[in-house]
Amino acid sequence: MKIPGTMRAAVLTARNEIQIKQVNVPVPGPGEVLLKVAACAVCSTDISLMDKPGPGQPDFGEFIPGHEYSGTIAAVGEAVDEVKIGDRVAVEVHYGCGRCLNCRNGNYTSCLNWGETEKGHRANGMTAPGGFAEYVVNHISTVYKIPDNVGFDEASLITNLGCVLYGFELTGGYIVGDTVAVIGEGPLGLLSAQVAKILGADTVWLAGLDDYRMGIAKELGIDRIIDVKPEDIVSLLKKSFNTGVDLAVEASGSEPGMAAAFRIPKWTGKVLLLGIPSGEVSLDMHEFARGNKYLYTVRGEGRTNCRRAVSLLKNGRINLKSLISHKFGLGDIEKALTVHKTNGNNSIKVIVNP
Amino acid sequence: MKIPGTMRAAVLTARNEIQIKQVNVPVPGPGEVLLKVAACAVCSTDISLMDKPGPGQPDFGEFIPGHEYSGTIAAVGEAVDEVKIGDRVAVEVHYGCGRCLNCRNGNYTSCLNWGETEKGHRANGMTAPGGFAEYVVNHISTVYKIPDNVGFDEASLITNLGCVLYGFELTGGYIVGDTVAVIGEGPLGLLSAQVAKILGADTVWLAGLDDYRMGIAKELGIDRIIDVKPEDIVSLLKKSFNTGVDLAVEASGSEPGMAAAFRIPKWTGKVLLLGIPSGEVSLDMHEFARGNKYLYTVRGEGRTNCRRAVSLLKNGRINLKSLISHKFGLGDIEKALTVHKTNGNNSIKVIVNP
Amino acid sequence: MKIPGTMRAAVLTARNEIQIKQVNVPVPGPGEVLLKVAACAVCSTDISLMDKPGPGQPDFGEFIPGHEYSGTIAAVGEAVDEVKIGDRVAVEVHYGCGRCLNCRNGNYTSCLNWGETEKGHRANGMTAPGGFAEYVVNHISTVYKIPDNVGFDEASLITNLGCVLYGFELTGGYIVGDTVAVIGEGPLGLLSAQVAKILGADTVWLAGLDDYRMGIAKELGIDRIIDVKPEDIVSLLKKSFNTGVDLAVEASGSEPGMAAAFRIPKWTGKVLLLGIPSGEVSLDMHEFARGNKYLYTVRGEGRTNCRRAVSLLKNGRINLKSLISHKFGLGDIEKALTVHKTNGNNSIKVIVNP
Amino acid sequence: MKIPGTMRAAVLTARNEIQIKQVNVPVPGPGEVLLKVAACAVCSTDISLMDKPGPGQPDFGEFIPGHEYSGTIAAVGEAVDEVKIGDRVAVEVHYGCGRCLNCRNGNYTSCLNWGETEKGHRANGMTAPGGFAEYVVNHISTVYKIPDNVGFDEASLITNLGCVLYGFELTGGYIVGDTVAVIGEGPLGLLSAQVAKILGADTVWLAGLDDYRMGIAKELGIDRIIDVKPEDIVSLLKKSFNTGVDLAVEASGSEPGMAAAFRIPKWTGKVLLLGIPSGEVSLDMHEFARGNKYLYTVRGEGRTNCRRAVSLLKNGRINLKSLISHKFGLGDIEKALTVHKTNGNNSIKVIVNP
Repeated sequence: MKIPGTMRAAVLTARNEIQIKQVNVPVPGPGEVLLKVAACAVCSTDISLMDKPGPGQPDFGEFIPGHEYSGTIAAVGEAVDEVKIGDRVAVEVHYGCGRCLNCRNGNYTSCLNWGETEKGHRANGMTAPGGFAEYVVNHISTVYKIPDNVGFDEASLITNLGCVLYGFELTGGYIVGDTVAVIGEGPLGLLSAQVAKILGADTVWLAGLDDYRMGIAKELGIDRIIDVKPEDIVSLLKKSFNTGVDLAVEASGSEPGMAAAFRIPKWTGKVLLLGIPSGEVSLDMHEFARGNKYLYTVRGEGRTNCRRAVSLLKNGRINLKSLISHKFGLGDIEKALTVHKTNGNNSIKVIVNP
Repeated sequence: MKIPGTMRAAVLTARNEIQIKQVNVPVPGPGEVLLKVAACAVCSTDISLMDKPGPGQPDFGEFIPGHEYSGTIAAVGEAVDEVKIGDRVAVEVHYGCGRCLNCRNGNYTSCLNWGETEKGHRANGMTAPGGFAEYVVNHISTVYKIPDNVGFDEASLITNLGCVLYGFELTGGYIVGDTVAVIGEGPLGLLSAQVAKILGADTVWLAGLDDYRMGIAKELGIDRIIDVKPEDIVSLLKKSFNTGVDLAVEASGSEPGMAAAFRIPKWTGKVLLLGIPSGEVSLDMHEFARGNKYLYTVRGEGRTNCRRAVSLLKNGRINLKSLISHKFGLGDIEKALTVHKTNGNNSIKVIVNP
Repeated sequence: MKIPGTMRAAVLTARNEIQIKQVNVPVPGPGEVLLKVAACAVCSTDISLMDKPGPGQPDFGEFIPGHEYSGTIAAVGEAVDEVKIGDRVAVEVHYGCGRCLNCRNGNYTSCLNWGETEKGHRANGMTAPGGFAEYVVNHISTVYKIPDNVGFDEASLITNLGCVLYGFELTGGYIVGDTVAVIGEGPLGLLSAQVAKILGADTVWLAGLDDYRMGIAKELGIDRIIDVKPEDIVSLLKKSFNTGVDLAVEASGSEPGMAAAFRIPKWTGKVLLLGIPSGEVSLDMHEFARGNKYLYTVRGEGRTNCRRAVSLLKNGRINLKSLISHKFGLGDIEKALTVHKTNGNNSIKVIVNP
Repeated sequence: MKIPGTMRAAVLTARNEIQIKQVNVPVPGPGEVLLKVAACAVCSTDISLMDKPGPGQPDFGEFIPGHEYSGTIAAVGEAVDEVKIGDRVAVEVHYGCGRCLNCRNGNYTSCLNWGETEKGHRANGMTAPGGFAEYVVNHISTVYKIPDNVGFDEASLITNLGCVLYGFELTGGYIVGDTVAVIGEGPLGLLSAQVAKILGADTVWLAGLDDYRMGIAKELGIDRIIDVKPEDIVSLLKKSFNTGVDLAVEASGSEPGMAAAFRIPKWTGKVLLLGIPSGEVSLDMHEFARGNKYLYTVRGEGRTNCRRAVSLLKNGRINLKSLISHKFGLGDIEKALTVHKTNGNNSIKVIVNP
């Protein structure tokens, strides 16, 4: 595979300002690989980092966003034999420092040296160059081979699925025969409802606002879709499951969503928080505490759940294609970001193909 | 539902001697229900208890074996509102004493007051009358409603499936994307392989001896079937998964099966022992210990996994019908036991319909 | 032991109205024992149930409160051989129904048939007669023998300690070398700080308001006591443990306490909620979610942690005596309740000796 | 701190042949530190690696053994701010590759790239130079600061204690009020018995052969010491704990020890295997399987348990001094190895001070 000296990349030149620039193609160091990017999905975190740079984020003029991508191995650095040139791969975002207590214990998505690149930490598209470019360098530990039956566009959603799977793992991961209610009909909500079914949940409900997305949910075979515009999820659930659900997944990031998620589990039930609220949330902690309930939160696609995600995709167990609503070329990245931001045009996941 | 005063039941009159007798229909006490038995499957434990009575087993002339059954609620005792007459139900075997430390902590299948009926312990078909009869009394906590789409014959295998599920739960229960090797092609092996697939395993291998059963395994969609007559499972697995499998399920109860199960997990991998060896087994503990591996054993269908089993069956996620190879009337119970014992005639599970 | 026909008992005759009455001594049924009560501690739940009866609570004129007690076995019902007359015992509150999913799985303090006595549920001093009386009947599964070196007054605090231990168990229970911050200097706070030390925590901080209780904390050897009147626990902790603590225990039940508890754990750290907030609490869920943190709540002294509590007391590992600030006779129960309510006179735990 | 160009080191020049040689002082790379070794304890693994080199072990003439050591930071490589020159430190052995699935998930002592130094794996004293030398280089992630109140000799046993703690963590780690039986009176047995007490076990028994070591156990306050020469541990335990112990720790590495460990746990009890049997062991798997028991094995001092070990030592919770029976200079390393091998002269741990 011939690798050019320079490439086109979407560079954050100023706050909320993206420009397509010609930059040098990076060179993989020891333990690293160079990917030819095939697809990179837009995530709300991208929008947020363009508006307000995060810790460790490269300066304006240097930062290439994009952390949900897939591609082909174009070059390998020293001491890499896990993949070879031409292999098709998906990625995970987080390569922890490997030396803090969290990394040592396997919680690398919560690396305590976040952003300290000299200590080894790197999160592509956050604290290191990302996937809205023709090429990107990844550490080998963040790369997962995908088989031929998996398309690149779907594969760019592996980090999403890995994040959802990590959430289910944190709550215990064994939910055969349990009742699950998912709040939020965005990508994480739609994935959570599917994952709950895959893992053997008895009944899966999904509550949402957007008609288009709820239509997708119906096609995905979710047991019951609740439109929260006319209906009250809490009272509906209490009516059907008088003791409450075993697991509530909050994937809307909204205050009413979270308030509902806290109310619906049965005694000793669990809440998994996938949506990240923007700040303070007022919650009924009296009932939560008296109900012996538990709350789990998720940061990233931890504990190699991307490996698990690839397996589900490879075996045809999960439908990621239905979540892809829009596709753009790299030159149209601003359009892609706008569609994602406005959430209009029946959008779910927006893909950029560099 | 009209309940007669007496019923036909298979009574263990002497060692290895079963007779069909006319006995009184039992009356459910507080918290109990009377089942009209529709189907009761034969289990190797039945054979073993007829040969050598277990602790707490009723005397010869009084003991009615059979612990894998399903039926219809014919009467309910005091303070029972969970089910009503006419409900179709599956059962679990174990009703612990509710007062020993194991029961208090949810490990009721390992009740420390096993067989002490005056303290409350009861295991139908083991320390209390079982299901090879027209009627049987169960405690309400051991009864699970089944929907109309579930047949009684399948439902009698719920204890088998509950036992396998309990085993997977004990090992962690979250195996999405993992590799699993099942050793043994009997009912527990065939169920384990299916459960591994349901829970999202990446690849499931099954090793066995019997051609008929391995044919069933193939129909069930198990990824690879290994005939251990010509092939060596350990070397085959090592070749395919160079670091070993994530989980080995031993369901053969044989010494070579267990020895193999100990060898094939990767470092930090697990062994789940579903088959119960008859005594001493010689095992390579050096490699097992150096590999940081874990061993889990299972007693019964604990932690309400029968509830989970019913859910899988209800939702069409598991195939139990393929495991039913023979059916007999209660009058032919000796034939049923013989088919099971000799394991001949392409048998897997043998059902008695009283 | 001669048992009289009647006894003195503190009966809730109307809302917030306690009267000492002469009532019949109860008779233990099968699996039950009669205790001669030696000591019964006042708990905030008592105060609350007198003000606003809970589900399943006996009617005014019949209800005897008190759920933290100890005493001597005065009589045993049928089928009880675990204790004998004269044995000294501590108790736990909750005897679940034994048939709901939570009870079957060992979560009997969150029994889903709470208050349904006909189904078997019983919580002494809540849904059944309690310990502010000369005698009380307990199910044998809620009774723990105490050795001679343990006093009755201390033993009445076993439920408190059992509750704290259950909380630590729920969070994982393995905290050797970890940093723990306890918020709240009440009985549960003082016990939590001790338990954290016992379990091997590296450093234990306790934050509180009351000078007397914080003096006790100092005597108990807690590493650092923070007076939250002049000091800000969050900024102090951040200064000392720059990544945050491993475990925050909220035992104040206050909104500021809980808000602080949510802020201080490190990424992947945990919050254990022992104090029960009275309603809605506003919490910074943004930081909590981004920090991959977990929240655990506790209901009662579950999973037989009273057994563990008795062991710590027996082995001299925990100091419960320092928590006993006041003692009254049964005739003075109103004084006892008042001292507890007003929280004055340097009170911590108030004991009634019937 | 002035660092010389060369140093004295114990080099494995041939099978079972150690020579003190003058070699170059190593230079720490990025993320690494140079230790001036103060104490290095002899371990049976050292003896074994001298006899039969392990995977990844440097060639004869190059390999410096010794993996249990402590010392002072003499130099720091690039990007190290966790420690500074002059800091006193203990170490752990294992620095995993950081890229295999086991390392990513926190199981770095079971690194699947064991011995592949080019991929990043390093285990000092096994696949990299060790501590029987004046200086040694460690990766910063394997270094733990020790306070002034901790002596270097004790600190060299941190890896031993970390290994035992890791074992307890793997079995759940919450054993307050439980019964524990330790089989084996060597260093790991003596540490296990102490750790069980620290974690709040109700009763701890230790079974052994050697009078001197059992005397130490008595001084350490272990509840009961069983001399297995005249006594049978299994029957004694069954007599005292009729249902069996909650946890059996096998630390003898012997076949009878392991056979006993498998017999003594109660139903649902656990076995922790710290001793590594030399090969095949014949075990009563029938009783083990019917008892719903679990087996855990340990590889190294995983999951940063050395951090926990240092904390116990710092806080005076554990006695490591009593385990140090002999001390030698580096020049006398052969004597040190001989004392360890022959296990004579009332030896427990033998320390070399370079």
